[in-house]
Amino acid sequence: MDDAAVLDIGGTQIVLTSDTLVEGVHYLPDDPPDTIGWKLAAVNLSDLAAKGAKPIACLMNYALSGDDGWDSAFLSGLRAALEQFAMPLVGGDTVAMPRRSARSFTLTAIGSATATPVPSRTGARAGDVLYVTGPVGDSGAGLALLRSGQSSPIALIDAYRRPQPRVAEGKALAAYVTAMMDISDGLLIDAQRMAVASGIGVTVDYIPVSDAFLALRGRAAQIEAATSGDDYELLFAAPEGAVLPVPAIAVGRFDTGDGMRLVLDGQTVPLPKHIGYQHKGST
Amino acid sequence: MDDAAVLDIGGTQIVLTSDTLVEGVHYLPDDPPDTIGWKLAAVNLSDLAAKGAKPIACLMNYALSGDDGWDSAFLSGLRAALEQFAMPLVGGDTVAMPRRSARSFTLTAIGSATATPVPSRTGARAGDVLYVTGPVGDSGAGLALLRSGQSSPIALIDAYRRPQPRVAEGKALAAYVTAMMDISDGLLIDAQRMAVASGIGVTVDYIPVSDAFLALRGRAAQIEAATSGDDYELLFAAPEGAVLPVPAIAVGRFDTGDGMRLVLDGQTVPLPKHIGYQHKGST
Repeated sequence: MDDAAVLDIGGTQIVLTSDTLVEGVHYLPDDPPDTIGWKLAAVNLSDLAAKGAKPIACLMNYALSGDDGWDSAFLSGLRAALEQFAMPLVGGDTVAMPRRSARSFTLTAIGSATATPVPSRTGARAGDVLYVTGPVGDSGAGLALLRSGQSSPIALIDAYRRPQPRVAEGKALAAYVTAMMDISDGLLIDAQRMAVASGIGVTVDYIPVSDAFLALRGRAAQIEAATSGDDYELLFAAPEGAVLPVPAIAVGRFDTGDGMRLVLDGQTVPLPKHIGYQHKGST
Repeated sequence: MDDAAVLDIGGTQIVLTSDTLVEGVHYLPDDPPDTIGWKLAAVNLSDLAAKGAKPIACLMNYALSGDDGWDSAFLSGLRAALEQFAMPLVGGDTVAMPRRSARSFTLTAIGSATATPVPSRTGARAGDVLYVTGPVGDSGAGLALLRSGQSSPIALIDAYRRPQPRVAEGKALAAYVTAMMDISDGLLIDAQRMAVASGIGVTVDYIPVSDAFLALRGRAAQIEAATSGDDYELLFAAPEGAVLPVPAIAVGRFDTGDGMRLVLDGQTVPLPKHIGYQHKGST
């Protein structure tokens, strides 16, 4: 299933997406509440970005914590993201959960498409180049640091805690791409999904990582960077030679075959057993 | 806060609403799962009805039960309601909950308004008549029957388990009303809310109950019928003498005062201590 629904309403193409964060599944009970609020907005904004959509508004379904300080911090993080990306909260509901129950938060975002056809993951063509809007793996490295009790380098921690959805990039790219999606589960698995959805094959031949990632983990950890997920970058296909409106990194090429191949430094590399984070689908 | 958000998108008035059902709060773990699916759709459809909106589509955020039979029955009840009211499910996400956690289900519905201005609860005027689209109290009586281990009369049980949102009535009425909302918490409390939102007073002088309710509970239980909630009827204000497009029952009149008065059979009746079901707000 695609990441967001597209509806024609009175001639306007509307993009709708909804995501839920569950305590103990998508975040840990002791994560800072403002970062949970931020992520709830960011994950939905990233789905709009993948459609090249301009955010219009959102609704939130909020499970009260019973702790006013927690709720207040959560809402401040949410509000910061909604303000940065100009997406007002216009409704939803608030519920109390039974005691000792995991809480969950749902945000539903609505946006208006800026290009026709609205990009999806199905349109890549053999010969198209596969691009990504930025390096991958920072968020996964940040999470690993936090799990081992460390809180620096801050660039990696922030990539995990305050991901930046590529809303402006998505709008700029929408008219140039043949397919687009956000990387939620890892560069490799999402590249494979795009190829499968498009009915063609793909070769990934480069894994872009940040200087902060390289300094900490080295180039040898690049497979991990391509499979840890939670990256919030856009993955897209565009014809060879297209002059793109925003910086992007070429990471592969689509072909008439099927399946995915990985070629690094000129060497074919066997695909890792786990090519990304696998979970229940989201639309 | 109003029950649904209204957005102008490319000249079309869009109505957005979202409601969450929480296990142990909005339904009981042993409720038939198909009725929970039905209600999740109905509660959102009722919010669209109150805006006179035509359903367009919905997104669902679903917490897996770990029991395929339960999930399947839930979905069959949901699907029945979505088919009856022509509101396709176009997306959402599915999450697993931690063990022993209460589950919750969120549905977000989008519709298009059929009248301008879109009805809200704020527009009633002194002299307007207060109407309801049908009798109240059946659902509350049905719940009381179930709680005491009874499963008939079926009309009352069905009112609780398979409420019928007034989508057609809402669309038909939208151009005639000065204010409209659905009765979710009880005729009295929602009449008071409409009066307060409109900055005026209201006198309720009739409580309509069904034949099934009368046969079981008698006229003496009418206050209970007006305060038990979960009615799914539309409550609206219209000018004196308006020729309405659908059947409706006059239950009171707005005035230049403030607050609510209850007059039954010509006698002023003190307001009951609890005038309706009080809970966290929903939009």
